[in-house]
Amino acid sequence: MTVEFISVGTEILLGNIVNTNAAFLAEKCAMLGLSCYHQSVVGDNEERLEDTLRRALSRSDVVILSGGLGPTKDDITKEVAAKVFGRKLYEDTHTKKQIQDYFCRTQNMQVTPNIWKQALVPEEAKVIDNHNGTAPGLILEENGKTAILLPGPPNEIIPMFEHDIAPYLNQLQPEGIYSKMVKICSIGESRVETMVEDLIVKQTNPTLAPYAKTGEVHLRVTAKASSEEEAERLMAPVMEELFRRFGDKIFTTEEEVTLEDVIIQMLLDKKMTVTTAESCTGGLVAGRLLNAAGASDVYKEGYVTYANEAKEHLLGVKHETLETYGAVSEQTAREMAEGAARMAHADAAISVTGIAGPGGGTPEKPVGLVYIGCYVKGNTRVEEFHFHGNRSKNRESSVAKALTLLREELLKVIDECRIM
Amino acid sequence: MTVEFISVGTEILLGNIVNTNAAFLAEKCAMLGLSCYHQSVVGDNEERLEDTLRRALSRSDVVILSGGLGPTKDDITKEVAAKVFGRKLYEDTHTKKQIQDYFCRTQNMQVTPNIWKQALVPEEAKVIDNHNGTAPGLILEENGKTAILLPGPPNEIIPMFEHDIAPYLNQLQPEGIYSKMVKICSIGESRVETMVEDLIVKQTNPTLAPYAKTGEVHLRVTAKASSEEEAERLMAPVMEELFRRFGDKIFTTEEEVTLEDVIIQMLLDKKMTVTTAESCTGGLVAGRLLNAAGASDVYKEGYVTYANEAKEHLLGVKHETLETYGAVSEQTAREMAEGAARMAHADAAISVTGIAGPGGGTPEKPVGLVYIGCYVKGNTRVEEFHFHGNRSKNRESSVAKALTLLREELLKVIDECRIM
Repeated sequence: MTVEFISVGTEILLGNIVNTNAAFLAEKCAMLGLSCYHQSVVGDNEERLEDTLRRALSRSDVVILSGGLGPTKDDITKEVAAKVFGRKLYEDTHTKKQIQDYFCRTQNMQVTPNIWKQALVPEEAKVIDNHNGTAPGLILEENGKTAILLPGPPNEIIPMFEHDIAPYLNQLQPEGIYSKMVKICSIGESRVETMVEDLIVKQTNPTLAPYAKTGEVHLRVTAKASSEEEAERLMAPVMEELFRRFGDKIFTTEEEVTLEDVIIQMLLDKKMTVTTAESCTGGLVAGRLLNAAGASDVYKEGYVTYANEAKEHLLGVKHETLETYGAVSEQTAREMAEGAARMAHADAAISVTGIAGPGGGTPEKPVGLVYIGCYVKGNTRVEEFHFHGNRSKNRESSVAKALTLLREELLKVIDECRIM
Repeated sequence: MTVEFISVGTEILLGNIVNTNAAFLAEKCAMLGLSCYHQSVVGDNEERLEDTLRRALSRSDVVILSGGLGPTKDDITKEVAAKVFGRKLYEDTHTKKQIQDYFCRTQNMQVTPNIWKQALVPEEAKVIDNHNGTAPGLILEENGKTAILLPGPPNEIIPMFEHDIAPYLNQLQPEGIYSKMVKICSIGESRVETMVEDLIVKQTNPTLAPYAKTGEVHLRVTAKASSEEEAERLMAPVMEELFRRFGDKIFTTEEEVTLEDVIIQMLLDKKMTVTTAESCTGGLVAGRLLNAAGASDVYKEGYVTYANEAKEHLLGVKHETLETYGAVSEQTAREMAEGAARMAHADAAISVTGIAGPGGGTPEKPVGLVYIGCYVKGNTRVEEFHFHGNRSKNRESSVAKALTLLREELLKVIDECRIM
């Protein structure tokens, strides 16, 4: 089965917003085993949208349109789709009630007369309730072709797709699609790809696809099967093989679980606390750790120590260490981590000191040189990194490496490798 | 003149990467006064790419293709474009030399035999040197239609577009396009749009387009003119009018200057220092301030105080204050800001305490309630906010508001409003 996406909106054509919906839909549909050969973007123009929709329906089984379902006269996706399918619009009482309820719930929005345009739906369309906005989703079917109309705002389209559209697409296919996400850290993208190349070459069902993220590699294992149990059975040998090859470098097999979630969970399990002492990342490691639910039980306080004096008086880094080795050094990173743990009475600490750029580099200590220290229960490990990006990329890479290091050190003190 | 974009790459169709190149090209071309009605994405498939390119050339004057110029056999953009334009490929000695030089410079990459495929260029094509990679940009012209082939990696396409493609597109047009970016904070998106609605309705040359960012609104003023001086003359009355309407809510008119850059510059000018005390944003305000060049001269240290005890012993927040009003309160935010300034011996301080969610909310203090305190030279102001996003959105909004508040308070102590 083939799918294609049409994003409707002049704001995408003008570059006002990045088309993250297309990436979301593409990844989800790939996960459902649908093949996608085309994506397109058109503005709020009737003729061009009609032309684009007709062409898409001529070459793909399912066309997913996002955006252009709002209340203004610029919003024409529904009208154009109804025209292409030869359907009239009528006011759907259920949808009208849904919109009223939405306004009662959220209150802070004004009901304008044109809002009721969103209660108009094409004849014989499947109507999908929108729990996070006013425009419903719509499904039109004819002669084996399907058009799915979804609202544009990410906080509306994402839950609607997960809750209603994914199951709908799944039942269109003779077999269901099931997948697991194997998330790996502590090992580079090209290395992971080399290590699974043979599996990818000989794959049929399940399939394996790598996705690179900063500091992580995700492998999606996807099986076609008539039931979840059969899918599990099909995926089991591949999952076992991946665990055999990557071992505890796999930090989770759950779609929604992040590296910071896993770290916070390890700390919660062991009733350990953590702190951070940051120079060039200036609070971003703390910011990432505190993304995780439950972080407040393990993270009490942390330090941004940009100046040398701050490293001395907040963390107790020795004046001689800074004088002798400099702020960006293995020794300073070590004393920062140990000092932070001592000051915060924490069981673990991460320190980062480096030269993120663009200025501040020297021949001996070039831009991109970063030392990351990790203290866990009496032991400190410091690693030296050389990053090659711009300032913000170097800081982002430093944060990813800091979390990876912390997980590695925590694993050493935790008896068994715990996979969430 | 019309332009359209074709992004080539299976990784976009699979959702492995977000198509940020399309947004970049769209915004830049809009800025150059080109009209864009279509964007599309196709995989590394010869037939579909040829079909897409032919259709694009039939309806647009300029087609910009990105991606698929690499050395592997999957990279087919150049071959397909040469076929569509009826040109043969030949080895360009200049490009071969460029690739050799690139490898000498970067060293850390291996020269593989297939790399020389990138030195093949279509007959009569304009070749654009790539200073950040190996695949050159290519421009093909025929019968008033132009195809521009650019490499896919953002760190290659962005500098190549800025340096070579933008001037090329500009000279294709009878008049040049010049623009300024007016960046506004301290005032909401819909309010800004209402305030400039009359200017947008009656606009001809220059034009005005709003772009909403988290906590900021950007207005792009674009003029068509035969020279930069004429453009300045055309834009002057609009710029004056915008300054009359928005005054010091305009924080810069420079494309590349950020809110944190402006704040750090204000502090540098006044030889003032700043610190941060963060609870729910957990280091993200510090992280953003330290994005700016020169931050090390004004930011010495900062605090992440998640636990109540940390607020007490690091910032000197009174135990009774936390007991009586709670950690998320106007009073605590005030004492956090004042305490941070005192502890860091800083002239200014920002504090953030709130409930980012998803847990932790109560009927009295719901998720999204955030207090932001701002201390500047003896005066403290605290504002209460109610955000309605998820955890990460609430934290992002808090960071934006914190910077806005700091700028407002700094303006009060700075004699004249300084526009960078």
